[in-house]
Amino acid sequence: MSDDTRSDDAKAERHKATMQKQKARVDAAIEAADTERGVLLLLTGNGKGKSSSAFGMVMRALGYGHRVGVVQFIKGQQLSGEEIYVRDHCPQVAFHQMGTGFTWNTQDRSGDIAAAEATWAKVEPMLTDPSFDLVVLDELTYMIGYSYLDEQKVLDALANRPREQSVVVTGRGGGSALRELADTVSEIKDIKHAFKAGIKARKGVDY
Amino acid sequence: MSDDTRSDDAKAERHKATMQKQKARVDAAIEAADTERGVLLLLTGNGKGKSSSAFGMVMRALGYGHRVGVVQFIKGQQLSGEEIYVRDHCPQVAFHQMGTGFTWNTQDRSGDIAAAEATWAKVEPMLTDPSFDLVVLDELTYMIGYSYLDEQKVLDALANRPREQSVVVTGRGGGSALRELADTVSEIKDIKHAFKAGIKARKGVDY
Repeated sequence: MSDDTRSDDAKAERHKATMQKQKARVDAAIEAADTERGVLLLLTGNGKGKSSSAFGMVMRALGYGHRVGVVQFIKGQQLSGEEIYVRDHCPQVAFHQMGTGFTWNTQDRSGDIAAAEATWAKVEPMLTDPSFDLVVLDELTYMIGYSYLDEQKVLDALANRPREQSVVVTGRGGGSALRELADTVSEIKDIKHAFKAGIKARKGVDY
Repeated sequence: MSDDTRSDDAKAERHKATMQKQKARVDAAIEAADTERGVLLLLTGNGKGKSSSAFGMVMRALGYGHRVGVVQFIKGQQLSGEEIYVRDHCPQVAFHQMGTGFTWNTQDRSGDIAAAEATWAKVEPMLTDPSFDLVVLDELTYMIGYSYLDEQKVLDALANRPREQSVVVTGRGGGSALRELADTVSEIKDIKHAFKAGIKARKGVDY
């Protein structure tokens, strides 16, 4: 047996021992998680990936034939790839957009508030309808941050939703009460971004 | 004019002024980003949302009729919603899975290496084919972390890909050289996770 073979064998043995320990940890954690119910997810932070992650979950849910609702608050005037895809290929998804453009484009607080309220009126029936397995509230956090919607009204609707329903909320900020209420919170940190290095936002990646 | 109305008007004016400044900043940043090319994205960190974000970008790209390749390294034996969806509804996506299950389930280093190499052989033709607009390499980082694939070989293939092609790499870790090469890096931090509070992983959300 060569030294190389011996060292490969040793590496394989160490690997196996490490993986056996890891398997025991993973199995114990899976065993311990025994509550079955829908979850409230908050995807926040300043990095790229919040809305796309929500749409990835839409794809997951559609894979299982789940009923999905998507409501987008504050979106640019530009069409996005996910919007085109959902409209063209997923007629079963209940899809609404506030459609007023970004706050810095409208520059109209009372108009934005009226649009936010009208959009929330599309959300409320979803959050009381147990036939929706997954509801995505894309960029909702800004509505709370700018006080376009009453925070307590939003929190109450989320807290009182059907037990089996999962909700994904995306956007920077959102406040500590929403974080507290959420079952899962992921904060997406911007370590670096192509845009800051002078690369244009990319169709099919950024929008 | 009541005090309330006056205070609302003042709020609206302040809002408008803030938004005008923000619009100037956003417009300047958009103006400065004038390079058009594909980007390399790394979605890393220990939080939930890396793979789902990659699949959200798949949906975006499909919205524009882009050509997409998806290769998944290290996946559980369990079917995932995104896998079912892509197989059933997106025959135009080139989709491959390593399919060996998690490293802690196989516990077999040499078998994992052979599987990783065979899977990489599916990736290489995509990374040299300009007809692919987007390539997702889901959980690739672990192949580098465990030294299942040669790091330099992976980095070279990514660096030398067609100029217009975007690539999304997901997974914890990945090493500093991959971070350096990537145009955009988002680190998804686990602030809290339902699983740790005893809630079972959820179909259509977690897998």
